[in-house]
Amino acid sequence: MPYGYNGKILKVNLSTATIGVDEHDEVWYRTYLGGACVGAYYLLKEMPARADPYGPDNVLVFTTSVLVGAPMSGYNRYSVVGKSGLTGLIGDTQSSGFWGPELKLAGFDAAVVKGRSDRPVYLWIHDGQAEIRDASHLWGRETKEVQETIRAELGDRLVRVAQTGIGGEKLVRFANVTNDLNHFNGRTGMGAVMGAKKLKAIAVRGHGKLEFKDPSKIQELARYFTQTFRQNPANRGHYDLGTSEFVGVQNADGQLPTRNFQTGHLEDGEKISGETMHETMSVKGESCWACATRCKRVVSAEEPYRIDPAYGGPEYEAVSALGSDTGTTDLAAVVKANELCNRYTLDCISTGAVIAFAMECYERGILTKADADGLDLRFGNGGAVVAMVEKIARREGLGDVLAEGVMRAAEQIGRGAEKYALHWRGQELPMHDPRVKGMLGISYAVSPIGADHVVVEHDTDFNFTAPQVWLDQLTPLGPLERLETSSIDNKKLRMFYYLQQHFSFLDTLTLCLFDFGPVRHYKMAELVEGAQAITGWELSLHELMKAGERRVNMFRAFNLREESPLDRFWLPERMFEPIQSGPRQGARVDPDKLRVALRKYFEIMNWDEGGVPREMKLAELDLDWLEPMVAPYRGVVREVIGA
Amino acid sequence: MPYGYNGKILKVNLSTATIGVDEHDEVWYRTYLGGACVGAYYLLKEMPARADPYGPDNVLVFTTSVLVGAPMSGYNRYSVVGKSGLTGLIGDTQSSGFWGPELKLAGFDAAVVKGRSDRPVYLWIHDGQAEIRDASHLWGRETKEVQETIRAELGDRLVRVAQTGIGGEKLVRFANVTNDLNHFNGRTGMGAVMGAKKLKAIAVRGHGKLEFKDPSKIQELARYFTQTFRQNPANRGHYDLGTSEFVGVQNADGQLPTRNFQTGHLEDGEKISGETMHETMSVKGESCWACATRCKRVVSAEEPYRIDPAYGGPEYEAVSALGSDTGTTDLAAVVKANELCNRYTLDCISTGAVIAFAMECYERGILTKADADGLDLRFGNGGAVVAMVEKIARREGLGDVLAEGVMRAAEQIGRGAEKYALHWRGQELPMHDPRVKGMLGISYAVSPIGADHVVVEHDTDFNFTAPQVWLDQLTPLGPLERLETSSIDNKKLRMFYYLQQHFSFLDTLTLCLFDFGPVRHYKMAELVEGAQAITGWELSLHELMKAGERRVNMFRAFNLREESPLDRFWLPERMFEPIQSGPRQGARVDPDKLRVALRKYFEIMNWDEGGVPREMKLAELDLDWLEPMVAPYRGVVREVIGA
Repeated sequence: MPYGYNGKILKVNLSTATIGVDEHDEVWYRTYLGGACVGAYYLLKEMPARADPYGPDNVLVFTTSVLVGAPMSGYNRYSVVGKSGLTGLIGDTQSSGFWGPELKLAGFDAAVVKGRSDRPVYLWIHDGQAEIRDASHLWGRETKEVQETIRAELGDRLVRVAQTGIGGEKLVRFANVTNDLNHFNGRTGMGAVMGAKKLKAIAVRGHGKLEFKDPSKIQELARYFTQTFRQNPANRGHYDLGTSEFVGVQNADGQLPTRNFQTGHLEDGEKISGETMHETMSVKGESCWACATRCKRVVSAEEPYRIDPAYGGPEYEAVSALGSDTGTTDLAAVVKANELCNRYTLDCISTGAVIAFAMECYERGILTKADADGLDLRFGNGGAVVAMVEKIARREGLGDVLAEGVMRAAEQIGRGAEKYALHWRGQELPMHDPRVKGMLGISYAVSPIGADHVVVEHDTDFNFTAPQVWLDQLTPLGPLERLETSSIDNKKLRMFYYLQQHFSFLDTLTLCLFDFGPVRHYKMAELVEGAQAITGWELSLHELMKAGERRVNMFRAFNLREESPLDRFWLPERMFEPIQSGPRQGARVDPDKLRVALRKYFEIMNWDEGGVPREMKLAELDLDWLEPMVAPYRGVVREVIGA
Repeated sequence: MPYGYNGKILKVNLSTATIGVDEHDEVWYRTYLGGACVGAYYLLKEMPARADPYGPDNVLVFTTSVLVGAPMSGYNRYSVVGKSGLTGLIGDTQSSGFWGPELKLAGFDAAVVKGRSDRPVYLWIHDGQAEIRDASHLWGRETKEVQETIRAELGDRLVRVAQTGIGGEKLVRFANVTNDLNHFNGRTGMGAVMGAKKLKAIAVRGHGKLEFKDPSKIQELARYFTQTFRQNPANRGHYDLGTSEFVGVQNADGQLPTRNFQTGHLEDGEKISGETMHETMSVKGESCWACATRCKRVVSAEEPYRIDPAYGGPEYEAVSALGSDTGTTDLAAVVKANELCNRYTLDCISTGAVIAFAMECYERGILTKADADGLDLRFGNGGAVVAMVEKIARREGLGDVLAEGVMRAAEQIGRGAEKYALHWRGQELPMHDPRVKGMLGISYAVSPIGADHVVVEHDTDFNFTAPQVWLDQLTPLGPLERLETSSIDNKKLRMFYYLQQHFSFLDTLTLCLFDFGPVRHYKMAELVEGAQAITGWELSLHELMKAGERRVNMFRAFNLREESPLDRFWLPERMFEPIQSGPRQGARVDPDKLRVALRKYFEIMNWDEGGVPREMKLAELDLDWLEPMVAPYRGVVREVIGA
């Protein structure tokens, strides 16, 4: 048996109700490793170009990596990859929790789902077996009930259930996948793809054992990581508050997206800060499988809203999207809205963003109270936020429009609403402002999955020490200068290029971005040591960086094939307008400089002027097999930079 | 004090007889590391374009690296870098021995020599001091006498002397630099540049101490390497025979360059094999500073030639160039010719190659016995080889013509002699045949210093396990297929790209290519550990590979600036003709496939069609400062591939 992986990938066709297994050799596993590289491999090999994301041809891949299942902090995630109904491009989303390692212990490294079922089904994977089971009785049910029912009928309380909820069933374009009710594959709407396939859930349970090359080294590293983590004062906030620790920090710095990104500072913002939530509503922190961190929040309340702690609690992104971006300081409403998003498997970023968009339309007279089903959609109205989440999940009234995401909603609403639809490639902007964070504009503009902050999360224009600590492990750097937001400095592009590869290989290995953050506890060299101890391969940071680049280029190949008008490199108009108030008042992105930066990005990627990877870039990454798919787009005169 | 380096670079101007010191910060040292990166830095910064290699403007850099001086096998080399009078392009040559560590202990990491002295001088560097001393009494003397005289007048037997000999004084274009009489900076004729500057020698002595980050780790690694090396049976031949172990192997395989590369098999070739030399003439093996290997040969004889063991003994390249390539099985003559090369500081590859060229011209009637000063220059005449080495060193008769190298000699001789001048970019081919070794053709064709086998020494078309062992540490590879000699398979290009970076960073760190060869004792991960223990930097294989690529791009920038007609990418005509006999009879390079391969090489390098690095490739390598030098050559329609 190989080290770190099973060598088996489950293949399911829901149209024909057939189940099979793919096996690949060691070189294949070492090349694709896991996560979106495995996902994109199947999408590129088995999905026809320009397939309907909600049709039977979409290929939905649930995949771990060769590292998942090792008992170490941060090694427990999985990805869901498929064509996104939100962007029409590749969709990729990671989640932590317990489901990933359980799949590995059940004997599979990934599950590839094709086709579409006529009736609701769920997949039951256990100890090398898999079966398609009826889920008619689970359709329309809330995730908690679904999970309990599945566990009961399978007679095992330890079955792990990844599922989509009511939002996914209703094809809300930004619907999530959730596992254990409080872990989420957010962004890109993979829950809607599950819904379209009538795949309610994948239940997994395994009693297997993974072999690792050097178990004692793994034990030693696990102990070391735990100790280092606990001793590091920089981790205190993360341990106590989770990602919500950043709400206060970013608001104080004037870069907390507020009122649909009109400003970066929310008055009385401390009312929704992580500290306030911790003091008034937190029940506890929770961990994922084998993790020493405790970044997951669990909140509970009875009044004014009943909050079920089974659905966890809001992350930074949720507080900002459902709170500051809708102008709300009503913490109870924010927490309730988040709980509803989780309950219905709605992506909380997109949900908050689409409500903020509606609110701006409302304030500007583009939407009336009648349009809003009688809701007073003024910024700051927490109650309206809560009510609107319900409507989106059930596609009721304006909720049915907003369930399409800001881009399509704006098209439907018309009357100039497009101007307030903050998305790129069809996906709503996450809660980080490129007008302040120097590299983030490029990150949003180039992200193959639509605007996304984990292409390169951190930047040099904020007081994080992250880029310095990271980049010092990648290249001789010297003290980082404070780069202007709109800088087109080549050094910044180089940093972006390196950091993108780094983030990308973390996602390929389905490693936790928080645990592997530089201010947390891992050094890159320790990550490499861990990967070696698990797999027995002579992995190096060189090889992992190439794996990261491989993922980006596979995504690019997929998107080229789709020939979508959305596949352009730019930012929404508002990013070129100044932040209206607060400490960062006046900050904006310079479009001329962005244009130059994007051209430079293509060049550093060894892509041509149309953003098409050159043949030898593909070859360098052992992706020659993509050449026939990519070649038709090369040399075609097509300006892809700009709105 | 920093770890691993002194932070001081000696600056000497021989025209003005002034001495200064450059200091650079830690980021500079971590960026350029040593070797040719430091050398090329000074050449690009301080030498005007198109300078006369033998004029005062040439900048000659003697440089160690941040790793030299650590008491570990293979960490003891230094480079000499300057503009080559042989190629008119960048020259770079490494040597081992004892001089490099001694320079470090004397307080300097490198010495940069500019200008030209009116009278012979030598440089005396000791314990942070340096002085220019008269060398009039040393001019015209043999290296052994020079070394003894310098040591005597400085009153220290442990002074280490790097010098050029009579060949360098006479501006033989392929003259070497030597240290301790039997270690050589071969190729590219840096000895002639010393001669032109009237710089006879650099004597160094240091009583300093280098600081290392983790001395106990260094000790542990040194012990581990020594043990591993001794236990590895693959090292036996190297330990017992040095590089001459390959003579017999390559001859048996039909790829030992014979009679000016007309064939790959020398009849009775075992008469000049490493084994025969070992049994009949070897005195002992010798090591370099702190090295556990014993690859240096020392040979001695009284008859038929007196061989002075002070000059060491022949390496593989010497046996092949002076032996098989001249068709000689007269071992005594080969060994004597080698001793003379060493005594006069002639590069033994170019010396053998230029004599083989003359022999072919002689056999084809292009040169007569009269042209050859009465020598019977038939292939196989060992006595004529010995005699001709003397003539080249002293530039007597035909020797004066051959001292120019095959390219210029052929021009002088005319009558179709060019066809038999086996060089690329003006430098004679080393003793490896691209018609057999699959990647070597690309290696010779792209080598910025002229035909060179250490761009990528090994290849996939021979029975070395080397590429497999190496590449498995760089990229997921799987079992290496046997690639056809002329293959343009993208996989081969990828391997070449990676191996070139790897070789290049070994030369940047001035590490021994033999000790760090994969069948020897180091793994790449151990090399990284060693580099970390010395410097305290979080170096990774990723960063080192980029350093290797940085060196290649700095070389490219230098060569572009020179605007030389020699700066083309191709092979000599003979490589497209079949090997005439032996096991590899018929093997040839396909020029059409080579052309495609070179285009692909440009593309994988992110260079444009004219072989000019794109702006963002320079930026990626933190070489933005080269952009103004390189930009004028970008986009200029100029075919540089082909003869």
